[in-house]
Amino acid sequence: MSGISAQPVDGSVTTPRGFRAAGVACGIKASGLDLALIVSDAHAAAAGVFTVNRAQAAPVTVSRRNLSASSGRARAIVVNSGCANACTGADGMRHAETMAARAASSIGCSVPEVLVASTGVIGVKLDMEKVTRGIAAAAAGLAPCGGKDAARAIMTTDPFPKMAAVEIASGSGTFRVGGIAKGSGMIEPNMATMLGFVTTDARVEPPLLQRALKAVVNDTFNAITVDGECSTNDCVLALANGASGVTLGEEHYAILVEALRHVCEPLAVGIVRGGEGATKLVTVRVTGAATDAEARQAARAIANSPLVKTAIHGGDPNWGRLVAVAGRSGSSFVLDSAAVRIGPIELFSDGTPHDERAPEAAEYLKGKDLVVAVDMGTGGSGTSQMWTCDLSAEYVRINAEYRT
Amino acid sequence: MSGISAQPVDGSVTTPRGFRAAGVACGIKASGLDLALIVSDAHAAAAGVFTVNRAQAAPVTVSRRNLSASSGRARAIVVNSGCANACTGADGMRHAETMAARAASSIGCSVPEVLVASTGVIGVKLDMEKVTRGIAAAAAGLAPCGGKDAARAIMTTDPFPKMAAVEIASGSGTFRVGGIAKGSGMIEPNMATMLGFVTTDARVEPPLLQRALKAVVNDTFNAITVDGECSTNDCVLALANGASGVTLGEEHYAILVEALRHVCEPLAVGIVRGGEGATKLVTVRVTGAATDAEARQAARAIANSPLVKTAIHGGDPNWGRLVAVAGRSGSSFVLDSAAVRIGPIELFSDGTPHDERAPEAAEYLKGKDLVVAVDMGTGGSGTSQMWTCDLSAEYVRINAEYRT
Repeated sequence: MSGISAQPVDGSVTTPRGFRAAGVACGIKASGLDLALIVSDAHAAAAGVFTVNRAQAAPVTVSRRNLSASSGRARAIVVNSGCANACTGADGMRHAETMAARAASSIGCSVPEVLVASTGVIGVKLDMEKVTRGIAAAAAGLAPCGGKDAARAIMTTDPFPKMAAVEIASGSGTFRVGGIAKGSGMIEPNMATMLGFVTTDARVEPPLLQRALKAVVNDTFNAITVDGECSTNDCVLALANGASGVTLGEEHYAILVEALRHVCEPLAVGIVRGGEGATKLVTVRVTGAATDAEARQAARAIANSPLVKTAIHGGDPNWGRLVAVAGRSGSSFVLDSAAVRIGPIELFSDGTPHDERAPEAAEYLKGKDLVVAVDMGTGGSGTSQMWTCDLSAEYVRINAEYRT
Repeated sequence: MSGISAQPVDGSVTTPRGFRAAGVACGIKASGLDLALIVSDAHAAAAGVFTVNRAQAAPVTVSRRNLSASSGRARAIVVNSGCANACTGADGMRHAETMAARAASSIGCSVPEVLVASTGVIGVKLDMEKVTRGIAAAAAGLAPCGGKDAARAIMTTDPFPKMAAVEIASGSGTFRVGGIAKGSGMIEPNMATMLGFVTTDARVEPPLLQRALKAVVNDTFNAITVDGECSTNDCVLALANGASGVTLGEEHYAILVEALRHVCEPLAVGIVRGGEGATKLVTVRVTGAATDAEARQAARAIANSPLVKTAIHGGDPNWGRLVAVAGRSGSSFVLDSAAVRIGPIELFSDGTPHDERAPEAAEYLKGKDLVVAVDMGTGGSGTSQMWTCDLSAEYVRINAEYRT
């Protein structure tokens, strides 16, 4: 739609030129990689979208501050898993600042040019000896093929690493976007932190990158839900270093948005697929709402409804739950002209159930990749799309287990 | 606090004088009582609080309309279980109107003096032959001790009937309040309709009764949650017939509210105890919020959080989840002065965890009747209390089963 051709490639944050990364094990977690470093060889424009949770973790505070102090320029992102560094008071702030300082000195840049993120248990302090050792090892191991290790190092108990990359051919030339993400799949029960890191070798000024990232996050990372929670540590960070020689200006905003979306959407959907106890990916589509905001509100209510999520888990084409949740969502809803579809099968329309089609819908729900759609019946043009997963007994098991 | 003495008694809607009730089986459900009739011998003031769901079931529409047409006067409430008469179009409206008309003719009053409620499967039409037969049988069986049968007849798969009654001695004389309710425990997966019916033999003018009922419902039936859903059929109806000879006027508002609360609170808490898959009753207390409304918003977020509810199910004193949900609730939250208590044990305060107390809190969580408290740290005086239950694998099992 922006006249570009996008070719998905097997890659990650190091697919764009001029980026190196590493993932190392430094003992914050009992086993496995737990510290990632992503570095741009040249100064890069940087942008970030952060959790709106008022209980904000120290690394979120430090990254916001550094982004502001550097006027949206950065060289590196340093991330640990296994410890969220949240609810850790003044010590936590010092530890997040030290993480940035150690990374800065190891790659030779100023401290505000490093962004920091953490994920893991809340209320536990970082072991800075381990972190310092990890940063040194990661800096020594930086490689142009290191994105996959970085993707593994930011996992907590995600069932698989999330990576995506795309090559974009546009009128301005060819550039690349890559990304890694982690989602919700924690055995040490905790808020399921969502982290996303996106790189591109296009040259973009920081304000444009920030605006594009915010728009894309709204329709991708912010359009997913596993259990309606928003963590203390959520963030999505982007770096644009210009190494491709392609410059995207204000007039290329649509191209930039589309390019970022090609990476952010599969990463976000990957987080849902790897959701705690998830067995099915569900795309919730709302149409016929008064406004896009009302459509989003209804889609969010449906995507978070335990009754909808358990019905889908059980393969029950229970359109009544979809009607009832749409009706209580707070958005305008006109029952007599509303409609519910499960996959291609319309089960309710014009105030009338079509339960004779329920067996067909039940068959459809045996699939793993499902669409449910609600027309709010207002005659408005508001639409929204969200991704969620089913709610299984396994989710309860994972989250009911004691931390220790 | 209103200078009254309240004596709980073993009773229900027929404990106040001048009320009779019946519960009969007319075949709407496969087995068991499924139609209830509650009648005041004299004309009574009537009040109602209804679902805010925009997909409103036909009986809700008819009860609202009758309450308005009769200027808040009623003689009877007729209720069926097994079929919600929701999403049933024009036929559903006719059926709800016919239910009121049949009940009116069987007891000899005008149609608008009958209030109607239904609960059960959405999208299925009432079998009016069965309903008509049921109303005739119930009218023939009306008895001053019939409240318990009525409480059973409004159940769907509630694990037990919910009844409460109280005798109030006030400066104005002695009067009684009684009630029955049904909650959330449906095997035919569905929105879990909440119904409450309250009677009193005090004389109260309709506007005062409406105002008091609304205030009490806000702190009782509206302060509970099992899964955050709000059904198409929820309603709480009250009748005040004056048979005690006690008249409560504007100056007795506080007495009326306290009297109603003595019945509505145990009914509401009973609904939570009987929640789908519930094994523990959890009282969520929020203090230190900017306003009562912000406190309620935070309490609701905590009470509905699947991460909090699964942690409590698993006996995990996970204060980090409470902090994180309070922080994302949208209400003002100041981490550095916030506090979290599980039972009497403070696990987080002044920005510092007290994890050394976790074993003590874990021991406390083995109980069945729990309190969790969050101080939002704003220094404000806003408070709120809600009741919820834990989230168990059994909830998923119940709600994932196919309807048929």
